[in-house]
Amino acid sequence: MATVGDIAVSAFVNILLWFVFLAAFAFMRIQPVNDRVYFPKLYIAAGRKNPRSGEANWVWKHFSLNVGSWLGAFLGWMPAALRMSQADIIRHAGLDSAIYLRIYILGLKIFVPMTFLALLILIPVNIFGGTLFHLTSKIVSSDIDKLSISNVGDQSPRLWVHITMAYLFTIWTCYVLYVEYDNVAFMRLHFLASQSRSVDQFSVVVRNVPSVGGHSISESVENFFRRNHPDHYLSHQAVYNANKFAKLVKKKERLQNWLDYNQLKFERNPERRPTRKIGFLGLWGERVDSISYYEETIDELEKKIASERQRILKDPKAVLPVAFVTFDSRWAAAVCAQTQQSKNPTQWLTERAPEPRDVYWQNLAIPFVSLSIRRLVISLLVFALIFFYMIPIAFVQSLANLEGLEKVAPFLRPVIELKLIKSIIQGYIPGLALKVFLYILPSVLLIMSKMEGYFSLSSLERRAASKYYYFMLVNVFLGSIITGTAFEQLYSFLHQSPTQIPKTIGLAIPMKATFFMSYIMADGWTGIAFEILRLKSLVIYHLKNMFIVKTERDREKAMDPGSFELPETLPTLELYFLLGLVYAVVTPVLLPFILVFFAFAYAVYRHQIINVYNQEYESAGAFWPHVHTRIIGSLLISQVLLFGLLSVKKAPYTTLLIVLPVLTLWFHKYCKGRFEPAFRRYPLEEAMEKDTVEKAAEPNLNLRAYLADAYLHPIFHSFQDEEMGEVRVDKYQTYHSRTSSPARSEISSPSPPHYVYHYDIEP
Amino acid sequence: MATVGDIAVSAFVNILLWFVFLAAFAFMRIQPVNDRVYFPKLYIAAGRKNPRSGEANWVWKHFSLNVGSWLGAFLGWMPAALRMSQADIIRHAGLDSAIYLRIYILGLKIFVPMTFLALLILIPVNIFGGTLFHLTSKIVSSDIDKLSISNVGDQSPRLWVHITMAYLFTIWTCYVLYVEYDNVAFMRLHFLASQSRSVDQFSVVVRNVPSVGGHSISESVENFFRRNHPDHYLSHQAVYNANKFAKLVKKKERLQNWLDYNQLKFERNPERRPTRKIGFLGLWGERVDSISYYEETIDELEKKIASERQRILKDPKAVLPVAFVTFDSRWAAAVCAQTQQSKNPTQWLTERAPEPRDVYWQNLAIPFVSLSIRRLVISLLVFALIFFYMIPIAFVQSLANLEGLEKVAPFLRPVIELKLIKSIIQGYIPGLALKVFLYILPSVLLIMSKMEGYFSLSSLERRAASKYYYFMLVNVFLGSIITGTAFEQLYSFLHQSPTQIPKTIGLAIPMKATFFMSYIMADGWTGIAFEILRLKSLVIYHLKNMFIVKTERDREKAMDPGSFELPETLPTLELYFLLGLVYAVVTPVLLPFILVFFAFAYAVYRHQIINVYNQEYESAGAFWPHVHTRIIGSLLISQVLLFGLLSVKKAPYTTLLIVLPVLTLWFHKYCKGRFEPAFRRYPLEEAMEKDTVEKAAEPNLNLRAYLADAYLHPIFHSFQDEEMGEVRVDKYQTYHSRTSSPARSEISSPSPPHYVYHYDIEP
Repeated sequence: MATVGDIAVSAFVNILLWFVFLAAFAFMRIQPVNDRVYFPKLYIAAGRKNPRSGEANWVWKHFSLNVGSWLGAFLGWMPAALRMSQADIIRHAGLDSAIYLRIYILGLKIFVPMTFLALLILIPVNIFGGTLFHLTSKIVSSDIDKLSISNVGDQSPRLWVHITMAYLFTIWTCYVLYVEYDNVAFMRLHFLASQSRSVDQFSVVVRNVPSVGGHSISESVENFFRRNHPDHYLSHQAVYNANKFAKLVKKKERLQNWLDYNQLKFERNPERRPTRKIGFLGLWGERVDSISYYEETIDELEKKIASERQRILKDPKAVLPVAFVTFDSRWAAAVCAQTQQSKNPTQWLTERAPEPRDVYWQNLAIPFVSLSIRRLVISLLVFALIFFYMIPIAFVQSLANLEGLEKVAPFLRPVIELKLIKSIIQGYIPGLALKVFLYILPSVLLIMSKMEGYFSLSSLERRAASKYYYFMLVNVFLGSIITGTAFEQLYSFLHQSPTQIPKTIGLAIPMKATFFMSYIMADGWTGIAFEILRLKSLVIYHLKNMFIVKTERDREKAMDPGSFELPETLPTLELYFLLGLVYAVVTPVLLPFILVFFAFAYAVYRHQIINVYNQEYESAGAFWPHVHTRIIGSLLISQVLLFGLLSVKKAPYTTLLIVLPVLTLWFHKYCKGRFEPAFRRYPLEEAMEKDTVEKAAEPNLNLRAYLADAYLHPIFHSFQDEEMGEVRVDKYQTYHSRTSSPARSEISSPSPPHYVYHYDIEP
Repeated sequence: MATVGDIAVSAFVNILLWFVFLAAFAFMRIQPVNDRVYFPKLYIAAGRKNPRSGEANWVWKHFSLNVGSWLGAFLGWMPAALRMSQADIIRHAGLDSAIYLRIYILGLKIFVPMTFLALLILIPVNIFGGTLFHLTSKIVSSDIDKLSISNVGDQSPRLWVHITMAYLFTIWTCYVLYVEYDNVAFMRLHFLASQSRSVDQFSVVVRNVPSVGGHSISESVENFFRRNHPDHYLSHQAVYNANKFAKLVKKKERLQNWLDYNQLKFERNPERRPTRKIGFLGLWGERVDSISYYEETIDELEKKIASERQRILKDPKAVLPVAFVTFDSRWAAAVCAQTQQSKNPTQWLTERAPEPRDVYWQNLAIPFVSLSIRRLVISLLVFALIFFYMIPIAFVQSLANLEGLEKVAPFLRPVIELKLIKSIIQGYIPGLALKVFLYILPSVLLIMSKMEGYFSLSSLERRAASKYYYFMLVNVFLGSIITGTAFEQLYSFLHQSPTQIPKTIGLAIPMKATFFMSYIMADGWTGIAFEILRLKSLVIYHLKNMFIVKTERDREKAMDPGSFELPETLPTLELYFLLGLVYAVVTPVLLPFILVFFAFAYAVYRHQIINVYNQEYESAGAFWPHVHTRIIGSLLISQVLLFGLLSVKKAPYTTLLIVLPVLTLWFHKYCKGRFEPAFRRYPLEEAMEKDTVEKAAEPNLNLRAYLADAYLHPIFHSFQDEEMGEVRVDKYQTYHSRTSSPARSEISSPSPPHYVYHYDIEP
């Protein structure tokens, strides 16, 4: 167990790093050459120009060595970030961003009064509880423990105070959660009400369209909705199976990149036309002129693409049993989305259509049975991943040891036997396997969520976030408290009585407080400071700039604003709530660390949302019910653990704590009924109001034309309009520009983006 | 533990009783005087007349001593009951009855093949498993145990057979359940589609109508639905707070009964006009002429009732924030019922309206917050009831002992000291307290369900049934397997590890097989034979006939057809499924007992549904999802217990059983998605079809008039039409006749009905 000294060292190191990162950020940020790394959102949203783009002097144009501005920039970004009002943030970065920031504020609202109360009341009670003063030699305990509940003697009447505090903290948390849920629900409804006209308001996605003998999918959809929504049905758009087409387009893009690269090479070095071999990977075969080779191949591919497009549009078999159905009013779309259409509940499944940029097209065609099997398989996989993830890693680690390597690849023996290499492999590779696993985990979880069959990016991200949360709960929270792998924990829990488990964990909780303090400083303080530095984006941007950027448009493409990665940040945040609630009564000195995290992270993410991130979709805060549920869950965990701890300490009246989880669960159920429908369904009152206002304002609106191609597969947008043939694309330029980049149309797109790859591996 | 001899004795006694009951039934049934007790449904539905009503001879008219017809009647009712086709049953007794009968058939479908397989394969394997042949002196075991899994040695490779059987049984059960759910869902949809026009198809009940300043509830409802469903809204009916009115009406009815009784007395004995005292309970005060006294009081009361009705209809405060809203089509009603109306999800809650005779009026006005608190309180109460019900009973028992009684009522001492009375009190009262409790338990659970705030009788009964099931699961199933009260079990479970619990119970299971065999014979065989005898109804009917019946109409009233009491019979049935599934692999000799139960009970209930019961409402099989879920739950319990048992026996490959619950749970989830919406929502396709057909057939239908007073509070129907004033009652005679009896309007109405009470306590 760490002593106060250890904590101090850890704090010193972390604060030092924190300073270094912030200083580096301040320095990098004011360099005009980095402007697009630190202010991409302003370029996109506000049409920012590089402040010194007019400068003639090259150095002066790209670098700034003004120490004054540097010092000013050190913390100067903070007031600027905090100054923007919430309404402006919603306008600038969307409601999701604004609601996301409210989570940090929620943390402060919950924990600031708790911290005051705890420091004022609990710490004095604990200090003068007094058992540990005399027992230090007997029990292993640190100075931190003297401030915690461990310092209060068994059966001490002072434990009354802790029980009372648990009640106060629960009531306060529930109160704040209620007010916040109310606020967010109101914000969401207000946002939806004030939103301008968008195609998703009039559209419904219908899945599992049955194939009625003799009719095509399109005819079936047309007939069904004409019959069952005769007064309101407008039209529908089929969804095509464009997987082959998408492959061809990707291939063409890749070749186009190679062509560009070769042309660039030729421009720089006009004496020598670049050549390549036509065999596999350009390794063998006849040597040809690269530029003309690529030009020819692209020409061929374009013909293929055109014919494939024709085939898709004409072949009835390319039409998937899914369609986007549009209605003449928001009211009718809301009605269709919320009602059951067919006598067979597995057919004609309707749902509100996501925004076009939020659609995950690949998952639209999954039939009902397959969907239910996929969910089963994925939940089993997630369970296995959470409890057994150490097994494959240990396997890789065992492979990565020296004997294994020598066996697999005997020709490497001379290299491996070198002392330096040997020590690197032995010391580093095992840790590396774990690091790599944790690094790719969010992507893996996202892929799992995709396999589950959700068809909007926002729901995919929410699902991935929830999986990640469970992983962290078991492997970070429980894993740090109890030694052994998650599987060993599971095994020992299965063999303990249900009343014993909270006792075991509860007893270990106060002893691990120092560990979590270090964790919060490392992950919550320094980690966030590192986030604002954007080191990875910085490096990638400059690499791109060096190798591929030719025009201003390329430079725009090279900007990678990213977004607040919901699947990662949300679970992390929720873990802090868990830590705070669990330790609030047990070891209140942990609370100030959490307060610092929430306050600092709030400023950083506010700054990033204003200046950097560019949202990919707008879900109007659809993640809030998840946040609420997780915090309620944390509250329950904290109550159960406190109960376990106090019953070991034989505190008088411990049974009084049983009331808390019951009340908390009831509160959760109440909130669910009270607020959740606002996040799941679009109220008819609201829809009717907007319809009425619109009809009065624009009586001659041609909705049919407005909705015509709203939900065309994005792949058809990726070419110029003149190529589109019979696929009309009108009025939708805004969405095209958002969806045209293939990297954007798949959120998994692992950074670094593939431009870099292609240009780097050219031999 | 019982030996084969004990079982044989129990079987002998039960079969004897079974014969006695059936013989008594055969004898009673053919007596013309009992015709209305054994065929009330035929009187109601088919207009049956007493077969010998034309006879002149009094004895011959009322009694039949024909031994031939008696012998014929002994089992002759059975083929007659089985002859009616399912379609006829639906027409005769409603879909609920037909689907209820299918549960017995489901039991046979599941258990007949299981029994064959188990008897053919498992029993030989168990017999030649052979450990108990040699160990009889060491372990306490009966001959029955030689046929059970206990007879197979630990770690025996023969346990493979049991694991395979568990798989086969699970797969078979799931298959049958799937087919049956499919069938029932189809029957329900078909029934709804072929149903003739009824008001509930066009109506929606809206609750939590907010009071918008200045507007009355009626105005608010009118405005809201005119605005949000402009094309389809027709009208609405307010719901009045008629509690005081209902009280007055009840009082009047009671007085009317007294008046009738006195008039009857006077007719029989015309010399002496009956008199009574006007004080409390007629015990003191001035003596007056009874007939004129009651006539006067009733006159007064009628005036009061009339003015109260005027007040209710005029006072805006008597209107509750609830309304029945009617639409111009089934489509529009379905849309309104399934969608969210208001921005505030706790207001304007819409639901499909139940049939008028299915409405539980008292619960309509409960607001959202109160509802959620009520559910919390009731679930806590049910939990307490299940686990601590022995406490109040023990308290009553301790009061009922002699010393207690003598202390409370010292004047009783001389009576108590009599030897006979003493032994009765000591031997009988403690058992009586428990009996009384179990007898009133279903009513108590129904009252609890009412307090939860569901507003249709059908859902109230389903909720009560589910509570009763949990009570039986804990106190009958677990309570018989493990000694000690439910609370002691709960306590010991909390202090065992989760893996230990199935082992403990699993080990006890085979030892309790003989107990459950006796239980099935007593409750399932003899109990059902007693049910068909209708002893209680018989006695009550003849008592009524003796004392109060004057006219043919009175005689009709005196018939008490009753119904298959869902809150009691459904949980009992489900318990048999549980027993069968749990013992199928462990002690397969139990299965034939269950088969006999299902087959015999099927015949009995078919007979009762055809000849006796009169359904109170039609829910179109809404209870099926509950039955399905309970059987799935039983399957899970059986798998877990088998796992526990086999892991104690250290069977090889026991872990293979872990797959079963996962698959079962997945199957349940799949079925839920596949079929449950058919029981919760009315598909638009269906609604639109019926609308279209109707519009074509009756283009000039005046729906507004048809729907005008469909959902008037039943209390307003209980008087003659000429009294109704401005409350028009037209076209609804069918519903009136069904709802006019106050006993029918509250399902709690504890039999015997209150006519008997009133006439019996007359001094």
